[in-house]
Amino acid sequence: MKKANNMVIAQSGGPSMVINESLVGAVLAARSKRTGARIGRIYGAVHGIAGILARDYVDLRKVSEKKLMAIAATPSSALGSCRLKPTREDCRRIFEEFRRLSVGYFFYIGGNDSADAARIVAEEAEKDGYPLVCFHIPKTIDNDLRSCDHTPGFGSAARFVASAVKGDDLDNRALGGVKIDVVMGRDAGFLTAASALARERPDDGPHLIYLPEVPFSEDRFVKDVKAAMKKFGRCVIAVSEGIRGKDGVAIGAKLGSGEVDSHGNVQMSGTGALGDALARLVKAKAGVKRVRADTFGGRAYRVAYAARPIADAAKETRSLPREFIAKNGHDVTQAFIDYARPLVGDLPPCAVL
Amino acid sequence: MKKANNMVIAQSGGPSMVINESLVGAVLAARSKRTGARIGRIYGAVHGIAGILARDYVDLRKVSEKKLMAIAATPSSALGSCRLKPTREDCRRIFEEFRRLSVGYFFYIGGNDSADAARIVAEEAEKDGYPLVCFHIPKTIDNDLRSCDHTPGFGSAARFVASAVKGDDLDNRALGGVKIDVVMGRDAGFLTAASALARERPDDGPHLIYLPEVPFSEDRFVKDVKAAMKKFGRCVIAVSEGIRGKDGVAIGAKLGSGEVDSHGNVQMSGTGALGDALARLVKAKAGVKRVRADTFGGRAYRVAYAARPIADAAKETRSLPREFIAKNGHDVTQAFIDYARPLVGDLPPCAVL
Repeated sequence: MKKANNMVIAQSGGPSMVINESLVGAVLAARSKRTGARIGRIYGAVHGIAGILARDYVDLRKVSEKKLMAIAATPSSALGSCRLKPTREDCRRIFEEFRRLSVGYFFYIGGNDSADAARIVAEEAEKDGYPLVCFHIPKTIDNDLRSCDHTPGFGSAARFVASAVKGDDLDNRALGGVKIDVVMGRDAGFLTAASALARERPDDGPHLIYLPEVPFSEDRFVKDVKAAMKKFGRCVIAVSEGIRGKDGVAIGAKLGSGEVDSHGNVQMSGTGALGDALARLVKAKAGVKRVRADTFGGRAYRVAYAARPIADAAKETRSLPREFIAKNGHDVTQAFIDYARPLVGDLPPCAVL
Repeated sequence: MKKANNMVIAQSGGPSMVINESLVGAVLAARSKRTGARIGRIYGAVHGIAGILARDYVDLRKVSEKKLMAIAATPSSALGSCRLKPTREDCRRIFEEFRRLSVGYFFYIGGNDSADAARIVAEEAEKDGYPLVCFHIPKTIDNDLRSCDHTPGFGSAARFVASAVKGDDLDNRALGGVKIDVVMGRDAGFLTAASALARERPDDGPHLIYLPEVPFSEDRFVKDVKAAMKKFGRCVIAVSEGIRGKDGVAIGAKLGSGEVDSHGNVQMSGTGALGDALARLVKAKAGVKRVRADTFGGRAYRVAYAARPIADAAKETRSLPREFIAKNGHDVTQAFIDYARPLVGDLPPCAVL
């Protein structure tokens, strides 16, 4: 058997703002004469382990450095992702494929479930006597990886949460009532906790923060909201999607679709059910009328002003004109693009592999 | 009666990123010797017309220019907002108050309902013979004001929608399935249409766009999704919160709380009900397994790397440590702030009046 000096790299789990930075960093290191002297071919498996099983690869030695830098600056997973927990049989097929390709190094970028997939591959390789060096490259915006001070992706995600809650607090200051923001984080409250960075003044929100680490009680929640309304005349609440009662079952999981991935995680993102349920609770039990819940998931235009009668703007709304609506009824026309592009400016450039 | 050369300015309707720019622009113009020569006192009414009825004002001649510039850069309504349609009796009390304060100019910043409130005040003033010049300063992120090419706020909101849908399209490319993004716009589809600016390549999403201007059919929607899944193997959908069936009633309004404001608008924002209902429909009728719905509503850290066994990161998650959780169970500690602040960096400065 010839020396297995080729490598496979893949991405897994939820895509994030920074997961392509890790991919490009690892690929550039592998391509470097200094750090990657022992590395031969660099296979990028498409959609994680699923790409190995399907023999679907991108040759990452052939991608230009310019394109790699554009990929690094692009959100989401350039190689595609998956949520697959490899079985004994999957591993057997993976090693067969690795043997065929002379792969001796396997890099898996992802969070704790992806690390677990890499651990399974490493342990099965050892059992089978297949010589494989496995690496897990940490990702994960919710910062729940053990043995990391913080995960790549947490800083930018935490900044988003803090900025969004800060904006909501200013809106709540203007219109009053209760605002509930549901924040990602199935088991760890780091991202929800980051909402506290929005505070500057003593009466700034978030006024209440509910974390998955603290058992959630509906009665206590209603009491807390009433107390905050009394003190501030308004209330901004940051709540983790993963809050759970004394039984340890996530409340959002009970309200959701019940969909479960191969790692046994119940779907919680991509639904507004938890926020809506808490909003109904506040309306019914805390007697607050205005309650809103959200779940966080340039210009070069010549402007001219003219005096117009108020009645021209009053009450009735302007609809999107017919010429901006595509004939199929579910799209827009180029005329709309031409109208809106100068208002919005160019979006940051993105690249795909 | 002495010459009524004082002015009242107020903000109304939903707060936005740019409504304080309009406030500060008008105040600086009124304070300028050139443009505001005829203006005496500048009263900022707190919470719109409600502030006039409650005699609650900020003296906007006394606020420093530096503070005004900080206010301009701050989102939301610095004077507070309201959603109040003035009655005949309200107007009578407003003119009594204006007479007391020698107010001859009234500026109301807001969207079409605020313009309607200003129109009512202007018409009632004329009926009563009270000499008042009324101005409506256009705001409104959803661009539905007649007689504006575009409203202040539409550009930045459209940019947000396009950026968010672009990010979702990249995620959808990585993980597949259907992603539904519900976008603001009760009667006008401009913001939902702006999602089209996310497209760069022929297979980029959004693949389907549903606007309030086009009658929505569930059967047609399911067929469209099936066709997009067949063509692209995935599907990103932008849908307006205001889509309505042939009966003209907004589907989101039927699913929501039924809450109605004084202008007769049914609550549609701040709930995930429409997105969740469409996701259920796609799962049930289009046979797609992975369906997600969302409703849009610096660093100076020393990093050190060390090799760690994969098992340390695998499967089990790290929870927020006890020392980061406040004793009351609904807040975080200073220790968490100290941990997270360098990761997130300072947020943009905000000012309140």
